[in-house]
Amino acid sequence: MRRHALPPFCAAAINRVAWIVLAILILAASQVHADAGKSPKYVFLFIGDGLAMAQRSAAEYYLAAKDGKPEPGIVKLTMNQMPVQGMTTTYSLNSIITDSGAAGTALASGVKSYNGAIGVDGAKQPVPTMAEKARDKGMKVGVVSSVSLDHATPACFYAHQASRNNYYEIALDAAKSGFDYFGGGGFKDPAGKKSKAEGEKQNAMDVLKTAGYTVADTREAILAAKPGAKLVALNPELDADKALPYALDGDTKGLTLAEYTTKGIELLDNPKGFFFMVEGGKIDWACHANDAGAAISDTLAFDAAVAEAVAFAQKHPKETLIVVTGDHECGGMTLGFAGTRYGNYYDYLKGQKASFEGFTAALKEYKKTHDAASAKFEDVIPMIKETFGLVVPVEGDLEAMKAAPKPDENVTSPANPYGMYLRDFELTAVKDAFARSMQGDTEKSGNEMDYRAYGGYEPLAVTLTHILDNKAGIAWTSYSHTGVPVVTSAVGPGSDVFAGYYDNTDLSKKLMTALAGK
Amino acid sequence: MRRHALPPFCAAAINRVAWIVLAILILAASQVHADAGKSPKYVFLFIGDGLAMAQRSAAEYYLAAKDGKPEPGIVKLTMNQMPVQGMTTTYSLNSIITDSGAAGTALASGVKSYNGAIGVDGAKQPVPTMAEKARDKGMKVGVVSSVSLDHATPACFYAHQASRNNYYEIALDAAKSGFDYFGGGGFKDPAGKKSKAEGEKQNAMDVLKTAGYTVADTREAILAAKPGAKLVALNPELDADKALPYALDGDTKGLTLAEYTTKGIELLDNPKGFFFMVEGGKIDWACHANDAGAAISDTLAFDAAVAEAVAFAQKHPKETLIVVTGDHECGGMTLGFAGTRYGNYYDYLKGQKASFEGFTAALKEYKKTHDAASAKFEDVIPMIKETFGLVVPVEGDLEAMKAAPKPDENVTSPANPYGMYLRDFELTAVKDAFARSMQGDTEKSGNEMDYRAYGGYEPLAVTLTHILDNKAGIAWTSYSHTGVPVVTSAVGPGSDVFAGYYDNTDLSKKLMTALAGK
Repeated sequence: MRRHALPPFCAAAINRVAWIVLAILILAASQVHADAGKSPKYVFLFIGDGLAMAQRSAAEYYLAAKDGKPEPGIVKLTMNQMPVQGMTTTYSLNSIITDSGAAGTALASGVKSYNGAIGVDGAKQPVPTMAEKARDKGMKVGVVSSVSLDHATPACFYAHQASRNNYYEIALDAAKSGFDYFGGGGFKDPAGKKSKAEGEKQNAMDVLKTAGYTVADTREAILAAKPGAKLVALNPELDADKALPYALDGDTKGLTLAEYTTKGIELLDNPKGFFFMVEGGKIDWACHANDAGAAISDTLAFDAAVAEAVAFAQKHPKETLIVVTGDHECGGMTLGFAGTRYGNYYDYLKGQKASFEGFTAALKEYKKTHDAASAKFEDVIPMIKETFGLVVPVEGDLEAMKAAPKPDENVTSPANPYGMYLRDFELTAVKDAFARSMQGDTEKSGNEMDYRAYGGYEPLAVTLTHILDNKAGIAWTSYSHTGVPVVTSAVGPGSDVFAGYYDNTDLSKKLMTALAGK
Repeated sequence: MRRHALPPFCAAAINRVAWIVLAILILAASQVHADAGKSPKYVFLFIGDGLAMAQRSAAEYYLAAKDGKPEPGIVKLTMNQMPVQGMTTTYSLNSIITDSGAAGTALASGVKSYNGAIGVDGAKQPVPTMAEKARDKGMKVGVVSSVSLDHATPACFYAHQASRNNYYEIALDAAKSGFDYFGGGGFKDPAGKKSKAEGEKQNAMDVLKTAGYTVADTREAILAAKPGAKLVALNPELDADKALPYALDGDTKGLTLAEYTTKGIELLDNPKGFFFMVEGGKIDWACHANDAGAAISDTLAFDAAVAEAVAFAQKHPKETLIVVTGDHECGGMTLGFAGTRYGNYYDYLKGQKASFEGFTAALKEYKKTHDAASAKFEDVIPMIKETFGLVVPVEGDLEAMKAAPKPDENVTSPANPYGMYLRDFELTAVKDAFARSMQGDTEKSGNEMDYRAYGGYEPLAVTLTHILDNKAGIAWTSYSHTGVPVVTSAVGPGSDVFAGYYDNTDLSKKLMTALAGK
């Protein structure tokens, strides 16, 4: 044998090197296996309510247009930069178009259920959630939402109710959850006034306190909270539905979704790790109302929250798994409109200074001193320009608009001095909507055409967002959710299983497997 | 040392085993590396023109509804079953909304160009295509499309023209390409009648023959072709634009897209491998016309072609890379409509027996014997039912429809005996459209409202597809393409690079890298 020809010390040395190399290779191989089987210590699940491909892309195109880039392009969102991207179907047990209850149950528990279900299956039986499983493993658990904490999506992680409208019972389930951190919106029925349960009802906020929760409702108190105590952080500024204001409308008193995320990371970080669900809930509400400006700014606020988790993950790259998904599409948003052909003018959206809700509130003020008889369209012209940047043409403008050279409809953001001016047929629609707003008869008219035109929203507000969005090249087909699949993004150990095309219940199962360390 | 305690033969045996294990490990590792660096022998690029997420999903929901599944769900397309799924942005050099020229140039050559460009960059300079690179490597090359072979998407793989409208010059470029197989649609201007070039023009079909191509235009001749000869296979049945008929309208004389794919595989298979681009071009055309039934059936025909490649790949799994993408979204298709709220009724689409084009052809026949004055709406009622399954209510029906219990709008496919009946406002729209069709004045009226309502299509046809699609829960926002990103699917060696979220030029670069074996 050739080996014997070598001097013995040499053969021994080679053998020793071989053994060491082999040992390293075996160790490396076993390490890969060990990593695959080890559960990530820190797990984030971000849910953009109503967030699908069109919503993500609209935000990216808007950022590029806002930055004044002359050529078409995108500025990538943090979530869209993650190495793993997948697509996720969202249909529920009873409809291709899910509601947030069935979608939240699918994401939290991996079970298809009916629209309206909160953490229960088709037979209305409770199903365990990944948040509860994480808690039972000794991990800390946080739930944050920009809408009320008892709303369908956050509720699906801690509550088990046959109906999403059982707000009081959902709040009681929060107190029973033992989770460590609830943050964002408020509770809609803490006193149980809408509850169908009989007997006297203890205020859910008191039940939460009895269960050991500190309830903080000022910016200072929330930011002063220290790890250890269980915290319910209620935003000091809330809308009528106990949700945070739209990012577009601003919030001087409270925290942003990103700040709730950062605070949560601080409170939840511990040697046993955490599971943290953060919902961007008002993307959905803006899309229901067909308001692209509000949807985009809330998508950006949501992405800023994702960026906080990514910053944390950069400090703990081997231990942090981040998954970002949507629970369903909303509004049937698309990035093209018949009237704009092949053109897009996202820079027009820069003119929008408040959401449809902000505009509706301003119109409500006007209504206090005017009725259908005394209302004058001229009165609201400044408000229209201030809020949406849309210009009502004055004498001579319409003729000038018609005489102006037609802009090239095959490019993005061409020079068009009359781009933000209302065209004749748009002006007609706006005046009609104003009249209907002042009559206040569309929401419950039962007239199908009223619903298709205004969706139950303030007619003038929704007409103006439709026109502004359409001018930008964005269009909508519904005031409800749709069946268009959503995008799922992921980064961190084990994130590769979130690539591909799969159902929302499978997303949940993948995440639960990761959490269990199988 | 412990090793010396072992009997010498034992130590030697262990050492020998260690060496063998080490050798196997090193070989395995180098094999992985070699596989990564080796170009796949067979490369397929499938391009669904106008195919994005909504189009794929609509087909999956339709299949499930068609099969009569009582609960909501999907039947997965072959392309959606591929292990790798990615998302791809499609914006061009001058617009967020690309045309098929700029998109085809991006996909074929990895270069952003302007709308209308065919294989040239922003400075109108030719850019090499992956098909040409594959040819230069000695691989065989095939190009198949369900629209004309000189149309933008297929042309971008072999032609270099400043304008997609240079049909004659594009056909001449085909003759110069040296590619082995062209199949599907015809050529739009073989005689060069529309060409701006001066001087006498040789018919492009003769130029192709001189260049060594056999031109076959019967099913028998196409199927009889043998490997070796260069073949141009022209479908015996072509529409006015030299495209294959819509899959929904049937084709008794020609081949399906799947058959062109199978034939291509047979002709292209050789020891040096092949590059094969197959386009489903009429998905786009159906979406331009807002005809979901035609779009879905052409998506299924395209997926059947993909399935042929997958069947081939199963025989050559280590050597076959398949990438499926779309060049852009078209029509602003979404899977939800204001009027249907949370409901979906895809089974209604089963009632559609022909495309908008088939219906338009039938109406054209009617127009031969009727003008606006002599036309009666009653005459076309049977045609409406026959083509789209839509029922024009007769006396008493409208009252019965109003009296009938309202179907639950929160479920998929509820029992609704009047689901396919035209509601009062739908009937008004249909009658108006019929009058406009008979007047024949909308296409070139220059009236923006006419364009938004009918998009330049036969008013009655597009009104009926709008109503049918809306009843099913599908809606549209444009007659043009949109900026919504598309889905990319891949399977085979090296396919993992097609996961994630990236631009269409990056898709091209990834594929060219794979082809080059880097």
